[in-house]
Amino acid sequence: MIQSRGYAAQQSTTPLAPFSFTRRDPKERDVVVEIEYCGVCHSDIHSTRNEWGNAVYPMVPGHEIIGRVTAVGNEVSRFKVGERVGVGVIIDSCRQCASCKNNEEQYCEVGTTLTYGAPDKYGDLTQGGYSNNILVDEHFVHSVSTKLDPAGVAPLLCAGITTYSPLRHWQVGPGKKVGIVGLGGLGHMGLKFAHAFGAHTVQFTTSESKVEDAKRLGADEVVISKDADAMKKEAFSYDFILDTVSAVHDLNAYLPLLKRDGVYCQVGLPDRPPVINMGNLLFKRRALSGSIIGGMAETQEMLDYCAEKNIVSDVEVIPIQKVNEAFERVLKSDVKYRFVIDMASLIEQ
Amino acid sequence: MIQSRGYAAQQSTTPLAPFSFTRRDPKERDVVVEIEYCGVCHSDIHSTRNEWGNAVYPMVPGHEIIGRVTAVGNEVSRFKVGERVGVGVIIDSCRQCASCKNNEEQYCEVGTTLTYGAPDKYGDLTQGGYSNNILVDEHFVHSVSTKLDPAGVAPLLCAGITTYSPLRHWQVGPGKKVGIVGLGGLGHMGLKFAHAFGAHTVQFTTSESKVEDAKRLGADEVVISKDADAMKKEAFSYDFILDTVSAVHDLNAYLPLLKRDGVYCQVGLPDRPPVINMGNLLFKRRALSGSIIGGMAETQEMLDYCAEKNIVSDVEVIPIQKVNEAFERVLKSDVKYRFVIDMASLIEQ
Repeated sequence: MIQSRGYAAQQSTTPLAPFSFTRRDPKERDVVVEIEYCGVCHSDIHSTRNEWGNAVYPMVPGHEIIGRVTAVGNEVSRFKVGERVGVGVIIDSCRQCASCKNNEEQYCEVGTTLTYGAPDKYGDLTQGGYSNNILVDEHFVHSVSTKLDPAGVAPLLCAGITTYSPLRHWQVGPGKKVGIVGLGGLGHMGLKFAHAFGAHTVQFTTSESKVEDAKRLGADEVVISKDADAMKKEAFSYDFILDTVSAVHDLNAYLPLLKRDGVYCQVGLPDRPPVINMGNLLFKRRALSGSIIGGMAETQEMLDYCAEKNIVSDVEVIPIQKVNEAFERVLKSDVKYRFVIDMASLIEQ
Repeated sequence: MIQSRGYAAQQSTTPLAPFSFTRRDPKERDVVVEIEYCGVCHSDIHSTRNEWGNAVYPMVPGHEIIGRVTAVGNEVSRFKVGERVGVGVIIDSCRQCASCKNNEEQYCEVGTTLTYGAPDKYGDLTQGGYSNNILVDEHFVHSVSTKLDPAGVAPLLCAGITTYSPLRHWQVGPGKKVGIVGLGGLGHMGLKFAHAFGAHTVQFTTSESKVEDAKRLGADEVVISKDADAMKKEAFSYDFILDTVSAVHDLNAYLPLLKRDGVYCQVGLPDRPPVINMGNLLFKRRALSGSIIGGMAETQEMLDYCAEKNIVSDVEVIPIQKVNEAFERVLKSDVKYRFVIDMASLIEQ
């Protein structure tokens, strides 16, 4: 057994608090990671507060994990002790289905094992990265360049790959006009990637105050989505729109901005399902789609791309003692653009 | 001026009745067609009853037109007097935009001219095929093989191309599993085409009574969509689903049947916009899309394909005097599978 310490929710209505627990002994293909940083994802809030209705407690959240390898199982071939690695949203899948064999483990047809709050194949409840260590099968561990700021890399494991994957899948690049809806943890990464891929990138935001920041982050243009005239001018000109907003909003305001055969991809899951004016799709053969994280090979590709292009998330680093305050600030969108917990703070308790 | 006779709606609440009118003189590129047959499309009912709110009266409906060329303008190169031709849903477009230049005039960015009930570029109101003649720019006229029964060909100009085009666009063929939702005018053509293209084709229907007919028309399997267990067995197995139903129905019952990256394409436009459970899209990167008719080159390709494969619509031929009765029967789905008006009946009045 491995001794672990972290912050956990004991039930849906209580704040996160210090929690000691054990993890199973490592298996042959496991990598044991001492966690240095863990990003604070909006889904950590949904999960610990049981807003998706499937929470199991106690729950240590966290799936944007960066750390150092401290031990490896006998059959581990890709990692050595001391290396910097990352762990993201899933830590297992069936590895046999068509999706897994196609390196798209996130769409595993049997079902993935989430990094926290889920039963693993041994019957244990997984516990996440708001803690000092984790052990994960090497297939779900990623190599992280030491060239990059590790705190800024942590959010790449969820916010990064969630935006990178659809932008790659729908071949965003030079000559394409791309919209990013929402400028938060996911949105600011989508903006950075779309810009880096060479697309003409337009940021949509409800907030005038974000215009300058969006330009700094790579937007060629910024459109205030509440301005009906400004929206009208964009009609029929986008190849692809990446919608990162999980708050309820009207997709029919954006669909007419797509060209014929344009694709609208949602990566945020709104609480209330949207009503879709099908004419917006039919009359230009547009598609409404969605995407979740990315496969393991693609996550590594993204991390390598970020190292090459020097891309990280804009983060505000906090000690773990401030995590409940950070949750409240996330709910008010009061963060630019991702909180990351410095796990060294856990030692000082 | 050309003298024309047909059946028209004088207002939204009156039945169609005999109507004499004039059409403009033919221009250099016009083909004058003596109409032999015209299909009865559900949209003829919507339009004449002003259910889409943009009707202009008097209105002669009809956009599934088959006839013989009786005159051609000086610059017409593709057609000769006496040839059999077809005219579909649109008779003009801008011919300059990206969609038009890409042979997808149906998605013209300036706007198409509908075959009836719309102002043409000369300011005249277009009048459709429930009449003895029509004149159309040759670009929007199609050559029709005399090998096929002309009454059965008429519905190909709308019901045929509306289903052919998306099945081609999304590359339905051998090795693909395809669902057809609804077995009416559009659905039975979608079924014939998907089968002809070599896909494993599954017909979805609410009605046990249609099972045998669906198999006769080419279905490899038939699933009763009201049977929840039967639907569950289909989960996650379809590459493409073509939904031809314009009555309000729950798309969320069908989306889980698609594989990862599967596409759900609607060609019927429901009166009430559907609510989409976005999880059905995100968690398998499925796409919801739609499609309208097809381009002019593709319509010709479809007609040639039908001649080669001996594909026509299953029709019930009626004299024009029965058109109001036919409208009522369409509304009750009491037709296998398309009414076609024999325009010779117009002469006998």
